[in-house]
Amino acid sequence: MKIMGILTSGGDAPGMNAAIRAVVRIAYSKGYNVLGFEKGWEGLITNTFRQLTPRSVGGIINLGGTILLTSRCSRFREKDGIREAAKTLALNKVDGLVFIGGNGSVKGAFELSKETDTLIVGVPATIDNDVYGTDETIGFDTAVNTAVAEIDKIRDTAISHERVFIVEVMGRKRGFLALTIGLTVGAEVILVPEEKHETHEIIETIRENGAKGKRSGIIVAAEGVGNTHKLARKIERKTGAEVRLSILGYAQRGGNPTARSRLLASLFADEAVRLLLEKHGNKVVGLGDGKITSVDLKKSCETEKPLDLSLLKLARVLAT
Amino acid sequence: MKIMGILTSGGDAPGMNAAIRAVVRIAYSKGYNVLGFEKGWEGLITNTFRQLTPRSVGGIINLGGTILLTSRCSRFREKDGIREAAKTLALNKVDGLVFIGGNGSVKGAFELSKETDTLIVGVPATIDNDVYGTDETIGFDTAVNTAVAEIDKIRDTAISHERVFIVEVMGRKRGFLALTIGLTVGAEVILVPEEKHETHEIIETIRENGAKGKRSGIIVAAEGVGNTHKLARKIERKTGAEVRLSILGYAQRGGNPTARSRLLASLFADEAVRLLLEKHGNKVVGLGDGKITSVDLKKSCETEKPLDLSLLKLARVLAT
Amino acid sequence: MKIMGILTSGGDAPGMNAAIRAVVRIAYSKGYNVLGFEKGWEGLITNTFRQLTPRSVGGIINLGGTILLTSRCSRFREKDGIREAAKTLALNKVDGLVFIGGNGSVKGAFELSKETDTLIVGVPATIDNDVYGTDETIGFDTAVNTAVAEIDKIRDTAISHERVFIVEVMGRKRGFLALTIGLTVGAEVILVPEEKHETHEIIETIRENGAKGKRSGIIVAAEGVGNTHKLARKIERKTGAEVRLSILGYAQRGGNPTARSRLLASLFADEAVRLLLEKHGNKVVGLGDGKITSVDLKKSCETEKPLDLSLLKLARVLAT
Amino acid sequence: MKIMGILTSGGDAPGMNAAIRAVVRIAYSKGYNVLGFEKGWEGLITNTFRQLTPRSVGGIINLGGTILLTSRCSRFREKDGIREAAKTLALNKVDGLVFIGGNGSVKGAFELSKETDTLIVGVPATIDNDVYGTDETIGFDTAVNTAVAEIDKIRDTAISHERVFIVEVMGRKRGFLALTIGLTVGAEVILVPEEKHETHEIIETIRENGAKGKRSGIIVAAEGVGNTHKLARKIERKTGAEVRLSILGYAQRGGNPTARSRLLASLFADEAVRLLLEKHGNKVVGLGDGKITSVDLKKSCETEKPLDLSLLKLARVLAT
Repeated sequence: MKIMGILTSGGDAPGMNAAIRAVVRIAYSKGYNVLGFEKGWEGLITNTFRQLTPRSVGGIINLGGTILLTSRCSRFREKDGIREAAKTLALNKVDGLVFIGGNGSVKGAFELSKETDTLIVGVPATIDNDVYGTDETIGFDTAVNTAVAEIDKIRDTAISHERVFIVEVMGRKRGFLALTIGLTVGAEVILVPEEKHETHEIIETIRENGAKGKRSGIIVAAEGVGNTHKLARKIERKTGAEVRLSILGYAQRGGNPTARSRLLASLFADEAVRLLLEKHGNKVVGLGDGKITSVDLKKSCETEKPLDLSLLKLARVLAT
Repeated sequence: MKIMGILTSGGDAPGMNAAIRAVVRIAYSKGYNVLGFEKGWEGLITNTFRQLTPRSVGGIINLGGTILLTSRCSRFREKDGIREAAKTLALNKVDGLVFIGGNGSVKGAFELSKETDTLIVGVPATIDNDVYGTDETIGFDTAVNTAVAEIDKIRDTAISHERVFIVEVMGRKRGFLALTIGLTVGAEVILVPEEKHETHEIIETIRENGAKGKRSGIIVAAEGVGNTHKLARKIERKTGAEVRLSILGYAQRGGNPTARSRLLASLFADEAVRLLLEKHGNKVVGLGDGKITSVDLKKSCETEKPLDLSLLKLARVLAT
Repeated sequence: MKIMGILTSGGDAPGMNAAIRAVVRIAYSKGYNVLGFEKGWEGLITNTFRQLTPRSVGGIINLGGTILLTSRCSRFREKDGIREAAKTLALNKVDGLVFIGGNGSVKGAFELSKETDTLIVGVPATIDNDVYGTDETIGFDTAVNTAVAEIDKIRDTAISHERVFIVEVMGRKRGFLALTIGLTVGAEVILVPEEKHETHEIIETIRENGAKGKRSGIIVAAEGVGNTHKLARKIERKTGAEVRLSILGYAQRGGNPTARSRLLASLFADEAVRLLLEKHGNKVVGLGDGKITSVDLKKSCETEKPLDLSLLKLARVLAT
Repeated sequence: MKIMGILTSGGDAPGMNAAIRAVVRIAYSKGYNVLGFEKGWEGLITNTFRQLTPRSVGGIINLGGTILLTSRCSRFREKDGIREAAKTLALNKVDGLVFIGGNGSVKGAFELSKETDTLIVGVPATIDNDVYGTDETIGFDTAVNTAVAEIDKIRDTAISHERVFIVEVMGRKRGFLALTIGLTVGAEVILVPEEKHETHEIIETIRENGAKGKRSGIIVAAEGVGNTHKLARKIERKTGAEVRLSILGYAQRGGNPTARSRLLASLFADEAVRLLLEKHGNKVVGLGDGKITSVDLKKSCETEKPLDLSLLKLARVLAT
């Protein structure tokens, strides 16, 4: 009997449960016994797991969060913790380990891979979409749609009160969320950490819009672009427009996964199990050129995923 | 030809458009010509209106915001502005005026009623539900459901990360939103401005829950209860739990109105027009004892609407 | 130790789980041991139950369906089945039984009450809203909002294609759903079983609307009003309009309960346990004149709940 | 001044408005004057259009349906109608025409291209996803998510009543919707027109599931697979399970477009205008290998888009 381990790590993302379900059922159909480690890498350090069967992952495809729980595990950032995790894998004779998580998890997995013979494959799941090696991560589409639905509501108030709203979305370091959300809500201005913004240009845009008869507006800003409170006050002072700030919080992380997040979960899981069956490890699966693919863990954690800034230009034309 | 004026004032609320539609169509069927004043009381001061017909209010029953625009009008807080508004009513020979708004609008309307012969009737619409004379205002049910849907999502993350979340909902002075939202998401703790809370009691509750095996929790707090950042830090320090804060922002104000907000809009509009037809003015319509009713503007603006604190006790039992 | 039984019966309704949670937790706080019988009356006949504790009903407040399962139990319609159920109550020393269900369940409970000493209290939960003794049942508000959201979508197509849509909603015998849905989507025509409709009048309305420039329309019809396929063909033939039929199916029964359905669940549960504690049985709790109240089972099953047909008139004025 | 024509044709799809907005604003920024023809090809035959400006397409990015209206135009299927349309293009000196629609529209556009010098470019928008030359059409993702949300609700009832539900989704000839929906709701059986199904195999699957302890199930069937009423009765008779049928109707066509449908709308529009600017015509734009691309109208209407049947196999493993 082959043994597979599975865990979810880092910030939770909608579709993690769909991925767990898919990995377990596909692995089971290939003859694996599946151990679900709890709370991410922590469960691997403390050897805390439960057995997962096709029945025990029923009824979860549509649930947000993760039934395996997750955490940001500080011990796993140190050599010591990683060695404990490697021991647990050996102890339980785990042939292959599937981790479901984001950028940080890929880095952790790469470190672990140096200390263990267990094959490790990653399934990228994070609302931040910042994993190199895949055009899209599980959970990203859901988070985008959650934010878009909220901003559609905020626009009701923006229009009715003739106000400008700055809406801060998640993304401390990267602007994938802000860019896609901004483009699809028709934001007048989009601010991402990858591009420096000049406050006077934003003010100019708001003024020009006013001159064109656009009396309300939406500015979508990633968390990481700086102090949005100050920005709001500045725009208000300089343009005379009423400006309000709304910070979209943790709701972006949860909720039922969209069809696309569920679909990616199933396709990624299928590929992850296939790789393990064929004795390929140290990979993270992904979507590239519209197809399911994979890259080395090392490559993924050493490369920064590029953001397509040409979309910012398109967004500007579209918001005229 | 009788002339009716209509306007929306104060913060926008989902269902205002449904109320405009209903007032216009019912008034029209009774032989009124309807003038829609724009941006609340401001439009009355500046004599800015457009004629509204049954066709011009088509296709808006399901839209958030208000097609008549709204504002918080500072000039209307002064005698001078109120007299201008009264002049506009006289100038346009307005027999009856329907205003759609919240607590502040009721106060403004009462002041205006002293300066004009035009009959004035209010339709209570605000997400805050703080208008005396009605058990429920247009928009309240929508805002509650919006917040509940978001907190349902946040709970996914709370459970997956075993965290406590403080969710701050709207309500600077009153706890209607926080109480109903807290009760219906199954919050472990509900904080409203109407009841003093002791931080050590909250901490005790979180500790007891932990002892019972509840590793995550939701605290719903009205805006007006004080510094929730500080509260979060304090709970974290004292209990060892991870605590996160999420401030549900302006999305609570917008969005398609729920069926109930639309229904109240239609029923209130029907009563408002009926009152004007029968020459009753200086009233605000409402829901009382499950029936459509009305109270005097004066009574409504001089009386504080009570919050049923017994529901807080029920909520505590339910969150065990 | 006092023993309470609880079950859900008849068609499932969103909010049943919130009611189970509330009954169990309140009962537990009053010193009851709670037995959850499965699949409605069937579980009572076959003595199939599990113990319910505050922890075992955690995380269900927001879930559709019922964790206790439900069924339409044919054996319970006969004397024999009812006596078996009574025996089970005696066997388990059940002091009080709370059933959560609709009209049919009230009738069954009344029959059972003649054969047992166990006190029985009903919590009305059905999307049909047809239980006498309460202005609103648990689940009704959710089903209305589900249908309204769907019809809002259908109207997009109706307008874009300039078509008339007949939308058939649930309600074999009663028109509560159709009336509230029709009023809140702004339907041009509403058909309920409680009022005879004349096809030529419907056709006349569609024609008049066309003359007024309304090129699309929504007709909301309860299941029980007759053959909607035929009606569609007839309107098409007589008016020249494109007419399409859409039958909203079982999705109306499911989904996360709205805040209001959850709130009623908590309030009804509170009253049900209170009645049992005070040794009042043979009651069904409800909402009357805006307050929590109760009526005798006998009265509830012998009286037909009236539909407020004056709302149909209002709907006609509003759809002009 | 260059002149661009634009129209939406065939069944409406969510995101058509986002596409209109994007085409108009991008074209305008490139110096085009844009004429919006109404009701699809019919507006081209009758020369019915209105001028579209960046302002006149504001506030529509999030609306379902199409502000240009649409129709299935029978006259355009004949030589005569096509020549009238060509005349209208010449009369208005239209340099480039963008049509937004599905498979049938591509065919119509190809016929029109033989009769006119106006360059024609198509933007694929249909919930059916059946246009060759693009992996995904505008509207498909929205329709999938609408259906998935409904089936998530239906599963509540399926589980609570231990029933099997056949859910019929749109797709008379093709199974794109059924396959993606089935996979992402975790359907036990998926029936598409592209693959023959044997009723006895379905019955076998339901029986096996029962033996495994799965007491409820979802069968997702495309419209085009035959009589689902009969199928339901047959499964019921042979397995003893309660089987219900739910036909998801026109709501699948409407509603606010998802972020992805809006994004495709913007990207496709950008490419369509670019092609026209560079004097490329007779193309339909699309998504291929994860990139924006285009194919000849001729190729698109002569080639049947393949359905990836390997996903059906995956779905079977996942539903174990």
